[in-house]
Amino acid sequence: MPEGGVRLDGAGRVHLVGAGPGDPELMTVRARLLVETAEAVVFDRLVSREIMALVPDGALRLDVGKAPGRHRLSQVEINALLVELARGGLPVVRLKGGDPFTFGRGGEEAAHLRRHGIAVEVVPGVTAASGCAATLGLPLTQRGLAQGLRYLTGHAQEGAALEPDWAGLADPETTLVVYMGLGQIGRIAERLVAAGLPAATPAVAVQSGTTPRQRHRLATLGTLVEVAAGFGGDGPVLFIIGRVVALAPAWTGCHALAPA
Amino acid sequence: MPEGGVRLDGAGRVHLVGAGPGDPELMTVRARLLVETAEAVVFDRLVSREIMALVPDGALRLDVGKAPGRHRLSQVEINALLVELARGGLPVVRLKGGDPFTFGRGGEEAAHLRRHGIAVEVVPGVTAASGCAATLGLPLTQRGLAQGLRYLTGHAQEGAALEPDWAGLADPETTLVVYMGLGQIGRIAERLVAAGLPAATPAVAVQSGTTPRQRHRLATLGTLVEVAAGFGGDGPVLFIIGRVVALAPAWTGCHALAPA
Ligand SMILES: C[S@@+](CC[C@H](N)C(=O)[O-])C[C@H]1O[C@@H](n2cnc3c(N)ncnc32)[C@H](O)[C@@H]1O
Ligand SMILES: C[S@@+](CC[C@H](N)C(=O)[O-])C[C@H]1O[C@@H](n2cnc3c(N)ncnc32)[C@H](O)[C@@H]1O
Repeated sequence: MPEGGVRLDGAGRVHLVGAGPGDPELMTVRARLLVETAEAVVFDRLVSREIMALVPDGALRLDVGKAPGRHRLSQVEINALLVELARGGLPVVRLKGGDPFTFGRGGEEAAHLRRHGIAVEVVPGVTAASGCAATLGLPLTQRGLAQGLRYLTGHAQEGAALEPDWAGLADPETTLVVYMGLGQIGRIAERLVAAGLPAATPAVAVQSGTTPRQRHRLATLGTLVEVAAGFGGDGPVLFIIGRVVALAPAWTGCHALAPA
Repeated sequence: MPEGGVRLDGAGRVHLVGAGPGDPELMTVRARLLVETAEAVVFDRLVSREIMALVPDGALRLDVGKAPGRHRLSQVEINALLVELARGGLPVVRLKGGDPFTFGRGGEEAAHLRRHGIAVEVVPGVTAASGCAATLGLPLTQRGLAQGLRYLTGHAQEGAALEPDWAGLADPETTLVVYMGLGQIGRIAERLVAAGLPAATPAVAVQSGTTPRQRHRLATLGTLVEVAAGFGGDGPVLFIIGRVVALAPAWTGCHALAPA
């Protein structure tokens, strides 16, 4: 595996790197090395400013970050940019929030690069789910409470309605983690309750987990949408729904009733 | 946050640390620091020997590892040991494979420690799922192929039958990751097929992912049990089932038909 900073022959190389949830201490050792020795970094708005501060001064930084509704570069444009940069001979660090292969569109980028003969190294990362759960002290699985774990997206593909199997999702023994759900959490909560998941099911919204800007609000499925409405600003928001949320040390029943 | 190596006053502290999937480069920066400066490490058989080699020579090492069927220490005994060690004044590094809050029983240990007035730091880790997916180059989610991701356990609680909602699980648009499934994969695959998931669904078994002992076999849901039978030895095995598996660069249709 070539070290970051070494110029490569041939068709180039892209390191598809998971930056983890935000705290630079929660980057992997491999990710940290690649970022600290990078010559070219292509990043998203999900990569925290604390992590971007580790990029060397002289390095090329390309922000392809996408805020909902105001895409800066389309995925097609990002793919093309990565090919172009790699062919230019610089090793490219493509930095993504969390794990690159968990709701990160890393698969699309890797496939595109491989089709163009570019070597791809994938560096896994700590997911937002693991990072947020750890920082709140709430386990994602727990014997007797949650035997399974589901990650879902609140963001449907363009043109498609978000219509997962609500009845299957409404399982009190499974922890649900909703990514990209800020815009849809009201509808998601409503459907889950309609499908039989109790409105009193513990839930939490976490913004910018593991960074100095972290905020969280404990709630229930029934009050989650009110709580979510309080989250403004730019930081990413994750929802965790399930009995395990009540294991968070900060949990007290009263949050459930009075989310204010 | 006290640095590893500093002696603590009062009731003590336990660092509940995710070691990641096995490769020491895939530990978080925080986990690496805690391990490299540890005075007392309590570990599982899931923590790779490469990672254990980073523990300082003079440190106390306690192996509470559990092989299926031959428990060395029960969970109750591990909980009690952690309390005792922490009260003894040493900062304890409780090292777990992957992420401590994903099928790691970290929640039970954290709760027990807190009940005994012991401070707990939880350090999230890269899950086996993320590590194995990255090393095989297969995304866990992909637009158009897998909008969701489910982690399930093949290991039912003592006395309980493993009876998840098979119909809900048999969703071709969701990637299934089966933890602790080696003993049950035949039954799991059978139930999924009976519930409607096509036997031709791509699948992979990965053993000791991200370590020098890594092995994997591409298969289909229908052939997964034969492939699994070929995995002996001690290393942990993970199964990934879903259309995304066909995106692995090593995938060719023929694996599906001739898993030999
Ligand atoms: C495109 S997905 C990327 C997920 C990422 N690849 C992972 O493995 O966690 C973006 C979503 O991740 C979640 N997210 C990422 N980082 C987060 C953080 N630090 N705190 C809360 N949510 C986060 C939010 O739900 C956000 O909408
Ligand atoms: C008790 S669970 C622990 C899971 C861990 N906490 C995580 O986050 O990945 C043990 C199971 O994890 C999976 N596993 C852990 N490390 C693995 C590895 N390096 N390769 C394959 N599977 C692994 C296997 O399915 C194993 O039976």
